[in-house]
Amino acid sequence: MANMFPDSFEGQESRILRDLNEPLVDHAEGQLFLNDAFKIIMEEVLCKGTDIKQKVCEWKEPEELSLLLDLELRATGEPRERLLQRVKDVAKYSIKTSHPRFFNQLFAGVDYHALAGRFLTEALNTNLYTYEVAPVFVLMENEVLRGMRQLVGWTEGDGIFCPGGSVSNMYAMNLARYQLLPDVKRQGLFGLPRLNVFTSSESHYSVKKAAAFLGIGTDNVIFVKVDDGGRMDPVDLDEKIKLAKSQGAVPFLVSCTCGTTVRGAFDPLDLIADVCEKHKLWMHVDAAWGGSVLFSKQHAHLMQGVNRANSVAWNPHKMLATGLQCSALLLQDTMNLLRNCHSANATYLFQQDKFYDVKFDVGDKSVQCSRKVDCLKFWLMWKAVGSNGFADRVDKAFSHAGYLVDQIKKREGFCLLQEPDFVNICFWFIPPSLRGKEGNADYQDRLAKVAPVIKERMMKQGTMMVGYQPLGNKVNFFRLVVFSPVLSQKDMDFVIDEIERLGNDL
Amino acid sequence: MANMFPDSFEGQESRILRDLNEPLVDHAEGQLFLNDAFKIIMEEVLCKGTDIKQKVCEWKEPEELSLLLDLELRATGEPRERLLQRVKDVAKYSIKTSHPRFFNQLFAGVDYHALAGRFLTEALNTNLYTYEVAPVFVLMENEVLRGMRQLVGWTEGDGIFCPGGSVSNMYAMNLARYQLLPDVKRQGLFGLPRLNVFTSSESHYSVKKAAAFLGIGTDNVIFVKVDDGGRMDPVDLDEKIKLAKSQGAVPFLVSCTCGTTVRGAFDPLDLIADVCEKHKLWMHVDAAWGGSVLFSKQHAHLMQGVNRANSVAWNPHKMLATGLQCSALLLQDTMNLLRNCHSANATYLFQQDKFYDVKFDVGDKSVQCSRKVDCLKFWLMWKAVGSNGFADRVDKAFSHAGYLVDQIKKREGFCLLQEPDFVNICFWFIPPSLRGKEGNADYQDRLAKVAPVIKERMMKQGTMMVGYQPLGNKVNFFRLVVFSPVLSQKDMDFVIDEIERLGNDL
Repeated sequence: MANMFPDSFEGQESRILRDLNEPLVDHAEGQLFLNDAFKIIMEEVLCKGTDIKQKVCEWKEPEELSLLLDLELRATGEPRERLLQRVKDVAKYSIKTSHPRFFNQLFAGVDYHALAGRFLTEALNTNLYTYEVAPVFVLMENEVLRGMRQLVGWTEGDGIFCPGGSVSNMYAMNLARYQLLPDVKRQGLFGLPRLNVFTSSESHYSVKKAAAFLGIGTDNVIFVKVDDGGRMDPVDLDEKIKLAKSQGAVPFLVSCTCGTTVRGAFDPLDLIADVCEKHKLWMHVDAAWGGSVLFSKQHAHLMQGVNRANSVAWNPHKMLATGLQCSALLLQDTMNLLRNCHSANATYLFQQDKFYDVKFDVGDKSVQCSRKVDCLKFWLMWKAVGSNGFADRVDKAFSHAGYLVDQIKKREGFCLLQEPDFVNICFWFIPPSLRGKEGNADYQDRLAKVAPVIKERMMKQGTMMVGYQPLGNKVNFFRLVVFSPVLSQKDMDFVIDEIERLGNDL
Repeated sequence: MANMFPDSFEGQESRILRDLNEPLVDHAEGQLFLNDAFKIIMEEVLCKGTDIKQKVCEWKEPEELSLLLDLELRATGEPRERLLQRVKDVAKYSIKTSHPRFFNQLFAGVDYHALAGRFLTEALNTNLYTYEVAPVFVLMENEVLRGMRQLVGWTEGDGIFCPGGSVSNMYAMNLARYQLLPDVKRQGLFGLPRLNVFTSSESHYSVKKAAAFLGIGTDNVIFVKVDDGGRMDPVDLDEKIKLAKSQGAVPFLVSCTCGTTVRGAFDPLDLIADVCEKHKLWMHVDAAWGGSVLFSKQHAHLMQGVNRANSVAWNPHKMLATGLQCSALLLQDTMNLLRNCHSANATYLFQQDKFYDVKFDVGDKSVQCSRKVDCLKFWLMWKAVGSNGFADRVDKAFSHAGYLVDQIKKREGFCLLQEPDFVNICFWFIPPSLRGKEGNADYQDRLAKVAPVIKERMMKQGTMMVGYQPLGNKVNFFRLVVFSPVLSQKDMDFVIDEIERLGNDL
């Protein structure tokens, strides 16, 4: 160490030694700052940010915003007042995803119990890998997963929280592969026949990303036809599996979707389970978006057959507004497949000579090492509202959707893509100049340009945010998702009026 | 929708319609709860949790803790006071990772600016995939990555924050593979010759996990010898690469380590870069733990040659205490490799007809879809202390390490594993009954049992937490990592005294 510490520590009070007596962090000062920052967060993000009299976004072009934020990182630190101003600025120019007029994604709204759980998670700064470091959260995650599995219909099983639904889906793909071909873990895919994954043409893109990442390749994701509502066709699935086999590929996984991203369709799980059983394939259900219907007596039927799946991905951070991220992968397996598939048995972390039962060291189930605690926010919220409260939220979301569909049907110039199964309401706004012109050759081209223009206007005025996209041969349409717990009927009335206002001159 | 909404909405004020007028979340009540929870967090986690007069952990066996926490999830919600008590209980039984006597992992301590950034992140609940939803954070992430790349020595490049170092390492492996064999993204690894990864025998287990997950297989991770200090031997690397080639494998990646998990060793990057250049291999540097030395003029030399790497993983959540998680993958590439490798071009999210420049929609660089904001906490902290402040923290950690090494050398019964390069101090405590018995046949067996017993005692008394592990033929030894910004010299004095106190009867 001599070269690193040229001054001897012996017999003198050197500068470095005096410094060693003082920690670098001043707790009192730090806590004061945190307290002030908390007040700003309360005011700017949670009060103003959920107030319909305030904008949902404050649009700035990237170049201008860069200047406004003064992002540059420098050699010297800044005074406290400037730092607090920075907290304000970040809040000001960020999108208010908890605002009642934020309909842009499959997450929205705020739940204060969940948010309290998130603040506590951050303050505790726990890494969820061993019982010794995360005793509360090892047990809590286990209990939350148990509660979720129970809704799926499993009295036993396994599971883990992952950093998002895409990763949960990847895990399922890796587990399905490992179950069929355990040697792949050691030997890789080299020299094996092609493995094939089956999923609907409207499933989430993460299935392709997973196939690419896991070395399976996107060409080996076989897309199954959907019906008019966007639900996987089990007959086509069966045929595509047979075709794949006849071409020398090895089918190993069917990834179903409950709540497709755009249309909110639910694949017919029972019929798909029959096909999976027939061909002995792993059945995964990507219910990242739709899974929360399991809380509702009225709507759980949409996932009839989910208990026959091998794995289910379900993100409470979407419909239940727990906050990003909260994505569970649930497994029916009771044979330690998750740990066997992912473990590396690192001796520095998962020592076998610990003084407690090391089965509580759950970290080796994950391909992550550091893993955030994602269960506390959901657990605290569940304690706060109960399963019944979650059921109410789901039921209310469907009611809101029904109300909105009704309004859209009544309003001139609005055209539903289809009757929704779920809370994704897809529709076109037909501006006055295009009404009655359906027969014109340029109708579709002109209609395709409507949503992007209205989107630009709503964002520049900051009045709301709604997503749009094309789908197959259907040109750009709006997708409005209504599930946020902060919503009320007037917000939906507003959306229709506002789209009309923004697009009436088009 | 008829079956879902049996009551007509027309002409009547049904119950469901009245309900629609009221949001499910009461903001005033919720904010009050959050405010009270914040006070508890301040008191229990940040005041008591960093107070050396308080315990670092409150050990309970899993069964007992389950009962104490009453984890069960029920149908009905609970009253506010009980929920606040739950916040207290979670804090009480959780490990105080910010406590000055928490030396158990490669993360520890608290920084209040970072924590303010984390609370703001949680409140804003932003998903970092498009500029329209995350304008501030798209730009901020870019700037933070630029600042980090600058320290690596790159004026250009790319990068992304990942959910932990293991995932960053996986990304590097996937990018290296894609660069060599872009068709793997579409076609998978089937029929290809074996790909080989090279890493030192003391590298992090995530390299093996990545190889398993990516379909490459753990057998295709070739472990390179290390020198006495745990640093990769470049001569052995060269030989192993040649051997692999001669056996028909295709080497494609060398994963170096800066700051190995146990001993804190830094691989000799310049010498390894020579080997990588010679064989045209992707050079990845896993600097998850050690990367922060780049801030220090005095210690950055440990990573001499890092600028020659293709990719670097670096976790500020470790040495800089930004809080979990903050892990950057930095790339030298300027040809959009990250996006090309990971993109799926989903039309519902990454529309090309947006009104702004879609190059700011960074989400397709990730294999995640939902991605948390991990840059804000680091950015705010950087603004608060400046690069100079980070340099001070790194330098101080080395000073603490030097002081501790000095004390260990002076104290009877303590035996250093080696002179450390970094702030991992590895040592045995030799209890009185074993001193001078090195020649006995059962010496190693008995020594191996010392650390686990002392660990059990420290946790049950709650006085501190220090990790231990074996390494190769070296039996269980303590690994003390000293870098937390809340540390002062007396905490290190305490550790030695306390180990002695706890182990003197062994």
